[in-house]
Amino acid sequence: MPGRIQSVERAAAILRLLAGGVRGLSLTEIARTLELPKGTTLGILRTLQHVGFVEQDAETGQYRLGGGVLRLGTRYLDGNELRTRALNWADSLAGRSGESVRIGILHEGQVLVVHHVFRPDDSSQTLEVGSLLPLHASALGKALLAFDPLACPDEPEPGTELVGYTRNTLTSPEELQHELEAVRSHGWASEKEELIDGEVALAAPIRDRRGTAVGAIGLSGAIERLCDDEGLRREQISYVRDAARSISRELGAHPW
Amino acid sequence: MPGRIQSVERAAAILRLLAGGVRGLSLTEIARTLELPKGTTLGILRTLQHVGFVEQDAETGQYRLGGGVLRLGTRYLDGNELRTRALNWADSLAGRSGESVRIGILHEGQVLVVHHVFRPDDSSQTLEVGSLLPLHASALGKALLAFDPLACPDEPEPGTELVGYTRNTLTSPEELQHELEAVRSHGWASEKEELIDGEVALAAPIRDRRGTAVGAIGLSGAIERLCDDEGLRREQISYVRDAARSISRELGAHPW
Repeated sequence: MPGRIQSVERAAAILRLLAGGVRGLSLTEIARTLELPKGTTLGILRTLQHVGFVEQDAETGQYRLGGGVLRLGTRYLDGNELRTRALNWADSLAGRSGESVRIGILHEGQVLVVHHVFRPDDSSQTLEVGSLLPLHASALGKALLAFDPLACPDEPEPGTELVGYTRNTLTSPEELQHELEAVRSHGWASEKEELIDGEVALAAPIRDRRGTAVGAIGLSGAIERLCDDEGLRREQISYVRDAARSISRELGAHPW
Repeated sequence: MPGRIQSVERAAAILRLLAGGVRGLSLTEIARTLELPKGTTLGILRTLQHVGFVEQDAETGQYRLGGGVLRLGTRYLDGNELRTRALNWADSLAGRSGESVRIGILHEGQVLVVHHVFRPDDSSQTLEVGSLLPLHASALGKALLAFDPLACPDEPEPGTELVGYTRNTLTSPEELQHELEAVRSHGWASEKEELIDGEVALAAPIRDRRGTAVGAIGLSGAIERLCDDEGLRREQISYVRDAARSISRELGAHPW
């Protein structure tokens, strides 16, 4: 049983480091941050540059991600069965609800957005495919946490609080567990101004043929549109659940 | 001067192999295709899986790209200076021309599409960011070939033909060189049903502060809309050149 290969792990760490910043990084910065010898770092950078995953700025000498990684990302999306099967249902959910729709999967303790349909109006919107959302402060994340047996948010030390984004974020692990029980009993999750003030979201789990939650689909938008005096509008909840059930059925889940 | 690192090159080869196919691959298929020992291949796959760049299907045991590569691709786009500076100009070009707009850069002998603005109508369109176009059969590619000193299409053996996509594709290297001279003298490139029947495209180079072509911007659409009896509509050509010049100016090129 072969173990993991150190230079490949280091190459991945360099790529993630370059992906994390807003600008290029110098050889010295990369070596220092990852606590690697400069010579080792340079060898890996040269190799990554050779295969097109890293570029070096001709003027500053700084390193940044290269076009080869974009190609990988696009091909990942093309090959993602969940996303492929969900495309039409996501369009139709955006049409019925009049709101922006996102599909997320669990990725290293966060929600990775793999599909995004803009709200069907003429407003200027930013494509969020590839962005990450916190599990505990998003409806998609709560749906994944509640129904995916492997999902567990970065386990906080007992008594430690989760990150707060607004004054409504559930920052206590106990409160979150309580909420996840409610999500399991209702079959859908919501988030009211817990990530962004003025925005609410709801989501339902997508299951595969083994019944495992492999993703979640949901919508998000202004609280004034999505809520009435009674809370989240009932018809929006039914649209989201219908969409999640239809995609699950396409993935081979039991048809009820 | 450190050399390239073999295991990192092999890891990159595995990622590209997985990106090239339409389905997952088994360990045996990957090892055989890359002519690597199975044990070596498994060690690299395990490492790539550990860092989230590869996933293994729980049922079939096949390997495919993982969500981590999507994240890299998205961050590459966020950090791409050309794309960031060009976003507004691309929107405005789509608005003025009424056609679909793409921005491409040179990537390993092809055009990598780094930005795509849909044609401003309600038709169903597919986002082409991350897709690759052939240099010799696209307007973006010809603009890059004509103005980028480093661009050279996969050098064919003397007398060998370039790949033909329609009966209009320039398949002779001599014809292509002749066309590129015309592109250099006009300052813009076009392609008439050379890649897809019924579609034409035009593009102009984007230059940086050193005057090097770092990308190209162009539009494409139905021949009936983009051409009149005299050929490509003059106003569309001027829109594309204006957009390319504006972006070049933002990148620090000389303002004339």
